[in-house]
Amino acid sequence: MSAAETRQKLIETGAYLFHRQGYNNTGLSQILTESRIPKGSFYFHFANKKQFALATIDYFNQQFSQLVNETLNNKELTPQLRFTHFHQAVLLQYKKMNYQAGCPIGNLTQEMASLDPAFQDKVSSSFGKIEEHFADLIADIEQTHQLNHSTNNLQLAQFIVNSWEGAVLRMKAEQNSYPLQNWYQHIYNLLF
Amino acid sequence: MSAAETRQKLIETGAYLFHRQGYNNTGLSQILTESRIPKGSFYFHFANKKQFALATIDYFNQQFSQLVNETLNNKELTPQLRFTHFHQAVLLQYKKMNYQAGCPIGNLTQEMASLDPAFQDKVSSSFGKIEEHFADLIADIEQTHQLNHSTNNLQLAQFIVNSWEGAVLRMKAEQNSYPLQNWYQHIYNLLF
Repeated sequence: MSAAETRQKLIETGAYLFHRQGYNNTGLSQILTESRIPKGSFYFHFANKKQFALATIDYFNQQFSQLVNETLNNKELTPQLRFTHFHQAVLLQYKKMNYQAGCPIGNLTQEMASLDPAFQDKVSSSFGKIEEHFADLIADIEQTHQLNHSTNNLQLAQFIVNSWEGAVLRMKAEQNSYPLQNWYQHIYNLLF
Repeated sequence: MSAAETRQKLIETGAYLFHRQGYNNTGLSQILTESRIPKGSFYFHFANKKQFALATIDYFNQQFSQLVNETLNNKELTPQLRFTHFHQAVLLQYKKMNYQAGCPIGNLTQEMASLDPAFQDKVSSSFGKIEEHFADLIADIEQTHQLNHSTNNLQLAQFIVNSWEGAVLRMKAEQNSYPLQNWYQHIYNLLF
């Protein structure tokens, strides 16, 4: 395995475990055992567990960008379909995890944002990126009809992203898709 | 200190620490040190840390009920003021904690709901209770004007509660009041 492959294997294993168990619940030893990578290789790539976790946030963002590019940003579709495909793609991901795993960025926010500024910066900028994609969608919708909101597009986009995070959180409490379906219905009504 | 006072002191200390540090980040030894209660007294009242944490959820619900009764449920006020006072009271609580502590029920959902069914049941029923208060408010609003939503009152109430949870989560990522202000503005626009 090349150094790059080793790093990637560590990141994927860590992302999987942090997502399902949380940051504090996941020890470095479990990451090493499940990835079958020796401790020395870990420390060749990462100074410590925290630096490693920050790198998994980049990985989560990258994975999510791919989903967003195929759905929300797919300008070959109508805005309605871009929004609907985004919702359906997300739902499918969560279904695969029995609606138990939540949003990895949201999880890390709850667990770490107030305890460590490096996490806070990183999750804040992750949210900002998702917001821009929704602001783009809103701008495209407004080419055809006026939306009923008293704020600017970025503020509405933030409301949509935050309410989505809340729906994903509630999904974890209920362990079913209803909160996300309910979010979709209300936001669809607001946008179209 | 009576047995009831000892129990209450433990609960208040545990609630304070869980809220700010999370469940896994807070050890029993810290709870005992900060409450100055001996371990034997702890085990007289609680079988283990988990049973204790479930009791702190009851305490959080009780505290929150008081805030809700004084604001959202205060039928001497107009629905607009009930909603606005609720928002302002919540904002004040979070300001005291520098917008860093998040919703204690939301925090425990992220951290524990998928790992332990007892937590999942408890947080799910906590959300259900808040929702009923919002459904009441919506019913009162609809006595004067029709709302523009295609769902029933409880579904709209769930959307409001979930979007609020998301705003509180985002508040932790940003460490300022903006996400809650933005939530207030959009939900106000939806309701009035």
